[in-house]
Amino acid sequence: MGNCLVAQSGGPTAVINATLAGVIRANQLNPIYDRVFGGIGGIEGVLNGALYDLTNLTSHELDLLKQTPSSTLGTCRYKMRRDNPADFERLLNVLDDANIDAMFYIGGNDSMDTVAAMAEYSITHGSGKRFIGIPKTVDNDLMNVDHCPGFASAAKVANQIVHATALDYAAYTRPEVFVLETMGRDAGWLAASCCVTGDVDLVVLPEVDFDRDSFLDQVKACMEAKGECYIVVSEGAHYADGTYVSAGKSEDDGFSHAVLGGAGAVIKQMIIDAHIAPRGLVQDLSRAARSSNFAQSLVDVTEAYELGLSAHMRSAHPDFTAQVVGVAPRSAEEIAAGEYNARFFARPARELANYVRHFPTEWILPDYRGVTDEALSYFRPLIEGEPKLIMEGGIPATLPPFSRR
Amino acid sequence: MGNCLVAQSGGPTAVINATLAGVIRANQLNPIYDRVFGGIGGIEGVLNGALYDLTNLTSHELDLLKQTPSSTLGTCRYKMRRDNPADFERLLNVLDDANIDAMFYIGGNDSMDTVAAMAEYSITHGSGKRFIGIPKTVDNDLMNVDHCPGFASAAKVANQIVHATALDYAAYTRPEVFVLETMGRDAGWLAASCCVTGDVDLVVLPEVDFDRDSFLDQVKACMEAKGECYIVVSEGAHYADGTYVSAGKSEDDGFSHAVLGGAGAVIKQMIIDAHIAPRGLVQDLSRAARSSNFAQSLVDVTEAYELGLSAHMRSAHPDFTAQVVGVAPRSAEEIAAGEYNARFFARPARELANYVRHFPTEWILPDYRGVTDEALSYFRPLIEGEPKLIMEGGIPATLPPFSRR
Repeated sequence: MGNCLVAQSGGPTAVINATLAGVIRANQLNPIYDRVFGGIGGIEGVLNGALYDLTNLTSHELDLLKQTPSSTLGTCRYKMRRDNPADFERLLNVLDDANIDAMFYIGGNDSMDTVAAMAEYSITHGSGKRFIGIPKTVDNDLMNVDHCPGFASAAKVANQIVHATALDYAAYTRPEVFVLETMGRDAGWLAASCCVTGDVDLVVLPEVDFDRDSFLDQVKACMEAKGECYIVVSEGAHYADGTYVSAGKSEDDGFSHAVLGGAGAVIKQMIIDAHIAPRGLVQDLSRAARSSNFAQSLVDVTEAYELGLSAHMRSAHPDFTAQVVGVAPRSAEEIAAGEYNARFFARPARELANYVRHFPTEWILPDYRGVTDEALSYFRPLIEGEPKLIMEGGIPATLPPFSRR
Repeated sequence: MGNCLVAQSGGPTAVINATLAGVIRANQLNPIYDRVFGGIGGIEGVLNGALYDLTNLTSHELDLLKQTPSSTLGTCRYKMRRDNPADFERLLNVLDDANIDAMFYIGGNDSMDTVAAMAEYSITHGSGKRFIGIPKTVDNDLMNVDHCPGFASAAKVANQIVHATALDYAAYTRPEVFVLETMGRDAGWLAASCCVTGDVDLVVLPEVDFDRDSFLDQVKACMEAKGECYIVVSEGAHYADGTYVSAGKSEDDGFSHAVLGGAGAVIKQMIIDAHIAPRGLVQDLSRAARSSNFAQSLVDVTEAYELGLSAHMRSAHPDFTAQVVGVAPRSAEEIAAGEYNARFFARPARELANYVRHFPTEWILPDYRGVTDEALSYFRPLIEGEPKLIMEGGIPATLPPFSRR
């Protein structure tokens, strides 16, 4: 019997390690691989042969792993490129050296493309190695799935913080605006999800070109009507010409995406400069939202774990490669009915890769007024429930990163 | 029988409403007052006669109140001044009109001074009205108590976010610094508490004059030794001449304190400008920390509730006025032994008012290296335990603000 490898890619989430735990546990339940290796430091580490044997983690370690946020194997921003076959060859050599038959890659858009590309390369070169993707991303921007593991927990903590800060804001009577900024580079799922609590007045999403004047009109109308205005803005909010609202803060992060941050502060200043309110508060969720193990969604962590199980189980079939295991989309009727029953499926990695799944424009209300009831029905089941966490010293207990062992 | 009044003052916390619930519940257990009124909108609202009858809240409403963050009665930044007796007279008239014998004032430093001043005025003018203080403040800066309700929950969520973001930060190998900013205008308790998880490398507190060069030396040494540096900075960090690190961002908030924010961003930029790291991340906890009902400390919420009970019970004595009910300080031996057994006491309000209790300099390690073991032993019991929260739609259920009814 050969071995398998699991690696994590891209930005951490609150449940990406639960997926890792699922793969490891599945192999304990049915040891179709001799060893389960973890790739330390993302694909960059794997290319350097940095592997860690995870085969025999104890049940307790796996329980801790499920509630450990971030990528416990470490991650990187290195991208395998189709136009650089040397990397592909090098990866196959690393897998050969460790007698690895199958590689599970937990990641986002770019990683699903890597899965497709590696599987194709492997088939073309007759290596027999197989590549299986498992999604994760707080951005929730993968095509052809209902949602991505990691998103629901980020949405849950965002809603908890929105409601708590909205009550904090409501305690004062002086005129001021409140602006909460969420992650979300190209897609506004996380920002849109903040509407679940009913506290949000206005939402600025990347899916709608930002128009300063019409936005300020809405803020003004809201302040006049209520004396307050709670605004949520996605970091990727931009004008019609593509300029980010946070302009001046972008820099290259190696993927030719812009590194964003500061849209909330810019919007606050815009409102003050327009004399709509004399002051404003900014709450930038930043990293706290995506690594929120203290507020894991039970639906999310369960699905993340089970997707790890599912990927391992399906990989028992020798032809299972270039596939991604995910949660199948709900129908519009299921969403409207508020029903939720996660169905797992496998799809060709190509169908999930490269394209950004935007928040549906038909779910966006005009004039920055938030989202439709259908959108709320989509979000609500995802943030339900809380796992029973193992606490230690007042915070959730975690496993230390394998990268430090 | 006369009535009593409860009002909330200053910044919200995660448990200030638990104290309110305690007063209301105590009067249901022993109805020594006919009615329990809540003052809507802090002392400013009370002066305008804005009262709400809380006498008969149901058990379920009280349970929700205990887990509702922020000041559910509303707050204000208006300060009763000893040099403005017209306000004092006006307050006595409001109390007279509503047949109120005793007023409970839940607040910080300034509010405890108001309690003392009002009680003195009342005695001098023979009004017979009594004034009782109950502390709250996430800043933990009241003299002569062990700690203030609200602080422990803020410290707990701060530690949860520190540990989660430290793991997120650790997943990457690229050189960058991480800077977390906490509230804490004059006292560094909250920033210092972040050292409990063991993730923090350097801490900048208001109790130590900030020296740019020696601080940057430490950052550099840390980056060279570990390849990473997790920094916590209190918003009130300042240079020897009193200039805030966040300089340029202060404005008057009506109390002749500076409104702060941005020390984290300034420190990040300072490190980049010194070429110690090419990039950095900033996480500003801001309001999320103080209204963290999703991460209430069980010790904190229990004490906050019981202080409400205690204040009401003690007020049965007709001479009980100008007093504050609080948690008595632990001895150094108790702290060192890790023992914790909250003892409630009453102290003259004057002894808690006006002076800021700084984080003890003997608990601060040199060179921004964090805090001593004794400090950690002080913090640890405070953040232990979690209440069983009533959840609704994936977030803790809350009562809507009375100010909106």
